[in-house]
Amino acid sequence: MTAVVRKPSPAEVRLARAWFSRAVEPGRRAVFDLVTEVGPVEAARRMRAGEPAGAVASLAAARRGEDRAAADLAEALRFGARLVTPEDPEWPDEALRAMQVAFDRERGAVPRRQVELTPPLALWALGPLRVDEAFARAVAVVGSRSATPYGEHVAADLGHGLAGRGWTVVSGGAFGIDASAHRGALAAGGPTVAVVAGGLREPYPQAHGGLFRRIGRDGLLLSEFPPDATPQRHRFLVRNRLVAALTAGTVVVEAGLRSGALATARQALRMGRRVLAVPGPVTSGESAGVHDLLRSDPEVTLVTRAADVLEEVGALGDDLADRRRAPTDARDRLEPLARQVLDGLPTAGVTTPDRIARSCGVPALDVLRALPGLEVLGFVEMTPAGWQLTSAARAGHRR
Amino acid sequence: MTAVVRKPSPAEVRLARAWFSRAVEPGRRAVFDLVTEVGPVEAARRMRAGEPAGAVASLAAARRGEDRAAADLAEALRFGARLVTPEDPEWPDEALRAMQVAFDRERGAVPRRQVELTPPLALWALGPLRVDEAFARAVAVVGSRSATPYGEHVAADLGHGLAGRGWTVVSGGAFGIDASAHRGALAAGGPTVAVVAGGLREPYPQAHGGLFRRIGRDGLLLSEFPPDATPQRHRFLVRNRLVAALTAGTVVVEAGLRSGALATARQALRMGRRVLAVPGPVTSGESAGVHDLLRSDPEVTLVTRAADVLEEVGALGDDLADRRRAPTDARDRLEPLARQVLDGLPTAGVTTPDRIARSCGVPALDVLRALPGLEVLGFVEMTPAGWQLTSAARAGHRR
Repeated sequence: MTAVVRKPSPAEVRLARAWFSRAVEPGRRAVFDLVTEVGPVEAARRMRAGEPAGAVASLAAARRGEDRAAADLAEALRFGARLVTPEDPEWPDEALRAMQVAFDRERGAVPRRQVELTPPLALWALGPLRVDEAFARAVAVVGSRSATPYGEHVAADLGHGLAGRGWTVVSGGAFGIDASAHRGALAAGGPTVAVVAGGLREPYPQAHGGLFRRIGRDGLLLSEFPPDATPQRHRFLVRNRLVAALTAGTVVVEAGLRSGALATARQALRMGRRVLAVPGPVTSGESAGVHDLLRSDPEVTLVTRAADVLEEVGALGDDLADRRRAPTDARDRLEPLARQVLDGLPTAGVTTPDRIARSCGVPALDVLRALPGLEVLGFVEMTPAGWQLTSAARAGHRR
Repeated sequence: MTAVVRKPSPAEVRLARAWFSRAVEPGRRAVFDLVTEVGPVEAARRMRAGEPAGAVASLAAARRGEDRAAADLAEALRFGARLVTPEDPEWPDEALRAMQVAFDRERGAVPRRQVELTPPLALWALGPLRVDEAFARAVAVVGSRSATPYGEHVAADLGHGLAGRGWTVVSGGAFGIDASAHRGALAAGGPTVAVVAGGLREPYPQAHGGLFRRIGRDGLLLSEFPPDATPQRHRFLVRNRLVAALTAGTVVVEAGLRSGALATARQALRMGRRVLAVPGPVTSGESAGVHDLLRSDPEVTLVTRAADVLEEVGALGDDLADRRRAPTDARDRLEPLARQVLDGLPTAGVTTPDRIARSCGVPALDVLRALPGLEVLGFVEMTPAGWQLTSAARAGHRR
């Protein structure tokens, strides 16, 4: 007994997504699932009507009576913002793919006390950059709000170096590291995006009004919340997941032991994104969280400058020249045994440790010991079919 | 046609070893092999006589005519020093075992431009500590001579913390990091050893005369060179190998990109010793070498304080309580998959990735991916017979 439903118009879809932005806190798995299942218009209708009963409907309980979707869209237009939805060409599908994968994988098994990695239903945007293009080559630079002059210097330097090479510098617009990273990028005349935890009409913190105006003029302001939303504690955590999701890697510059930047880093790791960390004096509390991060997870990489960051996140394409040079130099620095093992991998195709051992004349146990190191250094990767050279290592091979 | 040779007396052996200390630069593989083969007395006789002809004899060519062995031993006695030889009960056999293993393994395959890891033939010593006992639980703290106040502060703090827990702090007595580490250890009333690159009568640098007197009174001064030897450039590199060999781990506090401390770290890695590195500001040239070290080798561990160091090098015994706690806490922080793999290892004995996979119900490929991480974190280790839990992990298991 299924009802025949007329296909909603684009305007109806947009209104429904605008409605969700105000009616439901973003990041709720049940809501995203409902929208995915029946579409935004029908999902909004059901939630307004209190169906399905129970948990899902209750997520919008307090707000389902009011409908300010049209007013919010008009208000956004008034100050130059727009609502970007999955139906729009500029929706960052590609950048959000890792989040969708993590969302599906963690179904029913979200790590305790962690934000769910639910993709956004829509994004409010202000600025000349297209959202998808802004995140095609983007790195997050995050860190402590109570940064030291050292941290702010390093963040500005990184922001400048990354933006200067055409990478979008993404951060949260907060005091300290965030603002320095944005400013560094702006100074380089490069793209920068602030993903904020409240509405776009007066982004928080208000003291950064001038900075936000520059970002809105040259880069992009982004939010999941309606134009007049106030930042609330939990909204920062929910916002952080977007910063981690939309970027190829997250650089943590300074962070105390309980800094929200560490939460962003953990979310990035859950999505298979690179996490990079800038060390500092061990005597500085603002670096303690960074050092803890570096000590706790072998996937976190120490970086000291923009070139180090790009070595980790750089895609093929514009960075090809740099990428080629790096593994070749690194190859020269390998221990003789590791170099021998590396030479045992075929230029194309996958292989097994046993075949590598036969090919390079190194005992199989030594091959097994060498492969993880070569993997960490980016020379080889394991696929379900076996071990193979990375594309960067193959490029180095051919030189 | 073998000559029957009378067994040399202990006094003759001691004189022969003292003769080598002056006649031949330490660290020469061919000389060590000759001494191992025919004993020090016969080896010294052959070298004095110019046999075997060629390369080996030429190592002592310029000095084989003079014999100041007895005079050197008498001179050492005069200022309170002694010659410690492999025939003496205080010879640090145990501490030198890793060096002997690396020496045998690298036969014919010494990494290019690297010092040979040849064990010492004898050690001149001054101070109340027994050599073997001094190195039973010892950590090297090394770094830049042109250290910053930050580096000196951290080195003194580490020296103090390590010595305060009963660990011997070993360094080279140089300006900068070395001296700060020694001073920190002395301030804690703990043991400290300076391994110097010249003779013990007036250890280099002379400006550290006061420091050396305190170390000689409360700790130990050590050298492979005769009492009046002057420090020469290559002797520092040769000395460094001893610092790395005699200690369970080497902590690099500050190091420029070309610092000798990095050579010590590389030598430690060649001997399978732990290498630990203290980060600093990325804007400091004196930390650039440390960051490079951390980035270049996944076996190098970032440390921020004495407790971090002991977590890495702590043996069972006095540190049992600490060691137990660490892996257990760390286990709770593991990803669920890694925890599952860890649970698949037997409490005693070795196993294979396949058997782990069957035991814990995780695909074999995932087991292969998880094991290196568990190894880095100190939970498991690979032996020629297969994978097994580390003793620390077993201790954690039993809690």
